[in-house]
Amino acid sequence: MIETIQWIDNRVVMIDQTRLPVEEKYVTCRTYEEVAAAIRDMTIRGAPAIGVAAAMGVALGMLHASEAGLDAQFAAICDTLAKTRPTAVNLFWALERMKRLYDSLRGQPLATIRRRLIEEALRVREEDIEICRTIGRNGAVLIPDHATVLTHCNAGALATAGYGTALGVIRAAVEAGKQVDVFADETRPFLQGARLTVWELQQDGIPTTLITDNMAGHFLKSGRIGCVVVGADRIAANGDVANKIGTYSVAVLAKENGVPFFVAAPVSTLDLSLASGDAIPIEERAPAEVTHVFGQQVAPAGATAANPAFDVTPARYISAIITENGVARAPYAESLARLANRSAMVS
Amino acid sequence: MIETIQWIDNRVVMIDQTRLPVEEKYVTCRTYEEVAAAIRDMTIRGAPAIGVAAAMGVALGMLHASEAGLDAQFAAICDTLAKTRPTAVNLFWALERMKRLYDSLRGQPLATIRRRLIEEALRVREEDIEICRTIGRNGAVLIPDHATVLTHCNAGALATAGYGTALGVIRAAVEAGKQVDVFADETRPFLQGARLTVWELQQDGIPTTLITDNMAGHFLKSGRIGCVVVGADRIAANGDVANKIGTYSVAVLAKENGVPFFVAAPVSTLDLSLASGDAIPIEERAPAEVTHVFGQQVAPAGATAANPAFDVTPARYISAIITENGVARAPYAESLARLANRSAMVS
Repeated sequence: MIETIQWIDNRVVMIDQTRLPVEEKYVTCRTYEEVAAAIRDMTIRGAPAIGVAAAMGVALGMLHASEAGLDAQFAAICDTLAKTRPTAVNLFWALERMKRLYDSLRGQPLATIRRRLIEEALRVREEDIEICRTIGRNGAVLIPDHATVLTHCNAGALATAGYGTALGVIRAAVEAGKQVDVFADETRPFLQGARLTVWELQQDGIPTTLITDNMAGHFLKSGRIGCVVVGADRIAANGDVANKIGTYSVAVLAKENGVPFFVAAPVSTLDLSLASGDAIPIEERAPAEVTHVFGQQVAPAGATAANPAFDVTPARYISAIITENGVARAPYAESLARLANRSAMVS
Repeated sequence: MIETIQWIDNRVVMIDQTRLPVEEKYVTCRTYEEVAAAIRDMTIRGAPAIGVAAAMGVALGMLHASEAGLDAQFAAICDTLAKTRPTAVNLFWALERMKRLYDSLRGQPLATIRRRLIEEALRVREEDIEICRTIGRNGAVLIPDHATVLTHCNAGALATAGYGTALGVIRAAVEAGKQVDVFADETRPFLQGARLTVWELQQDGIPTTLITDNMAGHFLKSGRIGCVVVGADRIAANGDVANKIGTYSVAVLAKENGVPFFVAAPVSTLDLSLASGDAIPIEERAPAEVTHVFGQQVAPAGATAANPAFDVTPARYISAIITENGVARAPYAESLARLANRSAMVS
C-alpha cells in the first residue's frame, strides 16, 4: 500500500511522483518552502493531493514560525504556497480553510495554534480519502458492466490522499462486482497515465491497456470504450471543467461517438465564483517537458514548444459530474449550486 | 540538403529515421532483405518513401538474382517486400509497377531486365519529388495567409523522395510569399512530429511550435489554428483516409471547431478498389514502442499496451484531398475517380 502524502514526525512525506514507476522513492519536506517546491516540480500532483499538501505546508510553516509577527508569517507561508500552481482550485480552497481556522484562533497560545493547524491538515487528508470513497460509490452505478473505461491522466490514489476520484469510481465499480477493464491514455508530456495510472491499477489487479493519447479517438470510434471517467482541477459554475491537457479532446471524441463522458471530483474542486471555464487560469509549464522525456531529448536542439498543462472542456460535452454530494447533470448552473450546499451523501 | 533515399553504386542508401534528430546517420542496404528490414523497422517510413524503397528493393533483389528461376526469385522478392507493412498502399502500388515492367521484359537478357528495373526505381524516386512539388502548388492556394497550420506526424521530405506532401503544401505556401507558421503534433509513439517535422522545418526556417498530441484540440478550440494539413497512407474510393494514428482525432476536433482539414497525397495513395476505409488493414506494432521512448521505460514493467499505427478518418471530416492531379472535394467517390484518371496538372 503506497501513501501519497503523510504527516510523520512533524515532517511532510510524499512519494516522488516524478520518479514512479521506475523508482519508489519517498521525499521528506522539512519546511513549507520544500512543500511549495514539491508542488511546483510535481513531486506531488493531482488537484486533491495538492490541496492536502498545501494544508500540511501551512501547518509545517507555522510549526517553525516565531511568536513575533505571526500574522505576517502566516500570510507569507500562504502566499508562497498559493504561487506554486495556478489551475487546481483545491490548493486555494485548502489555504482558505487553513486561514479561516487561523483567524478563529487569534490570541490563543502559539502551541495551541500549531496543534490545531496540524490537526486540521490531518483532517483535510483523512476527509479526502473518505470523500474519494463516497465519489466512488456515487459514480460506480454509472459505469456499465462488462465495459472498458477510458481514463486520461491520473485521477487515482496518487492524485488524492488515497483511493482516487476517477480511479475511485472504477475501483468502486469493481468492488461492486462489475467486470471492468481500463484503457489509460499515457498523458504526455508528464506521462501520468503511463507512469501512475497503469502502476496503480496493476497493483489492484484491474486489467489495463496503455495507449498513447492520440489513440483515444480511434478506440472511441471503434465501439471498444463503454464510458470515459476523468478527474478535474477546477469546475466553473456553468459546469465547464479544467483538467489535464487532452481532456477536452477526449470529451469531444466521446461525444462524437456517443460515449458517456464523466467527471469525478470533490466539491472542493468547484469554483462557483467563475461563471464559465473561460476565466480559469491555465498554467503554462516549461517547454523542456515536451522536448524531453525523462531527460531524453526527443526534438531537435533549439525547438520551440508550447506546454499548456490544462485545457477547458465545455459543459456541453460532459454527461455528468460525480461528487461526494451526489451526481450533477445539465443544466449544471443549477445542479452544481445545489450540490455545493448539500452535505456528503451517507452511504 | 538531406536525402531520404538514394541509389548509389548499386546500393540503397537511406537516412536512418529512427535516430533523427539526435544523429544524422545513413544506412546502406546491400540486399533486398535489408531494404525490407529497413521498411519494417521504420529506418525509412512515410507512404511515398516506402513506395520508392520497395521499387529500389525489387531492383536490388533482381541485381543479385541468378538466371535460373528468375520468375520465382522475382515473386519471392516482391513477396518479402509486400509483407513489411500492410497499411500504406504506395508499397503495393510500387511493387505492382515493377511487376508490370518485369512482365513486359520477359525473354530479354538478364542484364537488360536489371538495367530497366533500376531505371524504373530511379524514375519512381524522381517522379515522387516532382509529384510532391505539384501537390505543393495545388495545395498552397488553400493555405490562408498569416495563418498557423497544424500538422500531424511527418508528411515531409523524409516521408517522400523529397519536398513532402503535407509539408510540401506548407513549403509551397511559404515559397508563394505567404506568412505561415506551423504547429507540429509530436506524434507518439514514434515521435515523427517532434523528431522529423520540427527538424525539417527548422532547416527551412519555417517557424514551428512543437506540441504534444493531446494539445491539438486545445489549440484548435483557441482559434489559433487556421487549417490542418496531413498526409495519407491509403485513401479509399469514398474518400476515407488511413493515416498515422491520431489523424482521426485531429480531424474530428478540426471539424468541431470549424477549421479546414486538408489531406495531401499522391494519386498512388488512392486505393479505389476499397469502397470505404473500413476495409483498410491497420498495422498493429510492438507494445514496446508505447511503453518505451528511445529505450527509456515510461510504464511499469509488465504493462499491456495497444499500438495501432494508423487510424481511419471518415471522408465527412475532410475538407479537401490535394493530389498532383488536382484537388478533390466531396462527394469524393466522384472527384477521386476523376482525379485518378487525369494526368498531373501542368504548372
